[in-house]
Amino acid sequence: MSELRWDPLKLHWVIIATERGRRPRDFQVEPTPPEMTSCPFCYGNEDKTPSELFAIRPSGPPNAPNWTVRVIPNKYPALRIEGEIDSRGYGMYDVRNGIGAHEVIVETPDHSRGMADLTAAELTDVLKAYRARYLDLRNDLRFRYLTLFKNHGTRAGATLSHSHSQLIAVPLTPPVAATELKICRDYYSSKERCIYCDLIAFELQNAVRVVKEFSEFVTMTPYASCFPFELRLYPKKHAHDFALMNDAQLGELAVAMKDMLMRLQVVLKDPPYNFIIHTAPPALPRLGKADYWTSLSFDYHWHMELVPRLTQIAGFEWGTGFYINPTSPEDAALFLREAEV
Amino acid sequence: MSELRWDPLKLHWVIIATERGRRPRDFQVEPTPPEMTSCPFCYGNEDKTPSELFAIRPSGPPNAPNWTVRVIPNKYPALRIEGEIDSRGYGMYDVRNGIGAHEVIVETPDHSRGMADLTAAELTDVLKAYRARYLDLRNDLRFRYLTLFKNHGTRAGATLSHSHSQLIAVPLTPPVAATELKICRDYYSSKERCIYCDLIAFELQNAVRVVKEFSEFVTMTPYASCFPFELRLYPKKHAHDFALMNDAQLGELAVAMKDMLMRLQVVLKDPPYNFIIHTAPPALPRLGKADYWTSLSFDYHWHMELVPRLTQIAGFEWGTGFYINPTSPEDAALFLREAEV
Repeated sequence: MSELRWDPLKLHWVIIATERGRRPRDFQVEPTPPEMTSCPFCYGNEDKTPSELFAIRPSGPPNAPNWTVRVIPNKYPALRIEGEIDSRGYGMYDVRNGIGAHEVIVETPDHSRGMADLTAAELTDVLKAYRARYLDLRNDLRFRYLTLFKNHGTRAGATLSHSHSQLIAVPLTPPVAATELKICRDYYSSKERCIYCDLIAFELQNAVRVVKEFSEFVTMTPYASCFPFELRLYPKKHAHDFALMNDAQLGELAVAMKDMLMRLQVVLKDPPYNFIIHTAPPALPRLGKADYWTSLSFDYHWHMELVPRLTQIAGFEWGTGFYINPTSPEDAALFLREAEV
Repeated sequence: MSELRWDPLKLHWVIIATERGRRPRDFQVEPTPPEMTSCPFCYGNEDKTPSELFAIRPSGPPNAPNWTVRVIPNKYPALRIEGEIDSRGYGMYDVRNGIGAHEVIVETPDHSRGMADLTAAELTDVLKAYRARYLDLRNDLRFRYLTLFKNHGTRAGATLSHSHSQLIAVPLTPPVAATELKICRDYYSSKERCIYCDLIAFELQNAVRVVKEFSEFVTMTPYASCFPFELRLYPKKHAHDFALMNDAQLGELAVAMKDMLMRLQVVLKDPPYNFIIHTAPPALPRLGKADYWTSLSFDYHWHMELVPRLTQIAGFEWGTGFYINPTSPEDAALFLREAEV
């Protein structure tokens, strides 16, 4: 079973996925995934994956063709669903067993279509599948955070080319989420306003980093982008929880998302990218005195972050935590704004 | 001029290197650096680089051949040496001008030899050049931290194949250093011991993650390694400052470093990697009440960190700050220990 290990010098947890047990020879070839003769995410191969957890399927039985979106457990999960949380000390370190969930959302049965090629209606179904899994997994009180992300392209970490996203449920609040939640809570505590709402208002007024404004959503490049052509997609009205959006809102989100993905495809010629949904964590189990910000993160502002993988993370970035971005966010926004989609 | 920009939502600084101004078409091809017909780091091309800052040269004038190690300013610096620090607010953000230093240490005149191919005596000269630049740059009171690192191989971010390292001086303490310095200070404050010393003692006793022990140094894989085959090189006796090592100590360090690099080369067939020196920051200018931990970081324990670039940083890692490592540090140490060097 995987282990979570704590580094007391760097204050971080690492998932040691011991079952994957990769040895030196596994790394010696540039990892270019072979185009498989038989893709496990295509129609007719439903028996090559674990049993489905959710699907949108007009008719027919589960684990058979005729679906439009399909969610399955990852065959090689980083964290396992079975077991109770176990935490112990080891010398100066801490270790926990690797409890969690690791799911795959297959976004389309069509092997040749990427996420940007889906219609807004098809993309809405993908978002409904995301929502369904968020709502289901938050019933599991062992999980502290649910991370939904997509790796597109080999350089962005995708190992199968058939378009898919992933959802990992973790038994600890990740550091990135912890920082954002704390920022929101501190800001709200002193001002009774959402820091994201204030920042979005400033950006809409300033306009230079806005890519496209819709009635409910807006896409922009962040002022302090770590990477060239980094993007954010925000709901304009305050909303802390992606999973509480209704069908109409998901439909509008799909339109904004498709626009963002198409602009990226046009300007950068289908670049590798990662996108991640940042949303409020599930409420903690009732402990009497629950941790103050996970109990009800109404002051968080959910959003999507998209990072094209155009530059390498090298020694300076890894050694300092500073990033060097060779494209100004204002230039990136201009190129994206002017793209013909 | 470059800018440092502050993100109030993520609490990080980013260097926007506006002079590099990379546009979409600069990213459309896989960045495989062309093998230049004329390498600026080879003998006879000294006039193709900015004037040298330091060199080890048995005889002859500066900026001419016959050197063994040569240090020059980076021709395309991420931060510029000229000017005074300027800091201001911008809406909810903060921005500073990109003051700093960015130097290149050419480790050998021989285009075909990597760092692992250098003799221990040659490597000692490289370390002497590092030390000389650390000692010189810490006289510049605008700089808060000096980061020395090496990117080896295209996938690790190297853009020129001729073996070289880089030194970047930054006007702010980087988050990675700030965390480590705080950990050391807090631990020392309560226990009057160094946390690294305690951890090294535990690891030496435990042995499973030790790669090779020398009289003054030890190499090991960290318990909570983020990446496969990650390595640390520690001085066994407490020492907070790399730049205070004497010639004999640098000679012993070179032997340990060469051993580490050769084991990596044998086990992983010359993998791309980053290494970074983590050392105490320069003392702050006398402000009456200097920041408590930068004034005298005697409780820090300098060391080297080496990260082979074998896996991709993908959406999960970027979105959460958690890393998934598919090779246990104990397995990695075993492979490296058994390598014939």
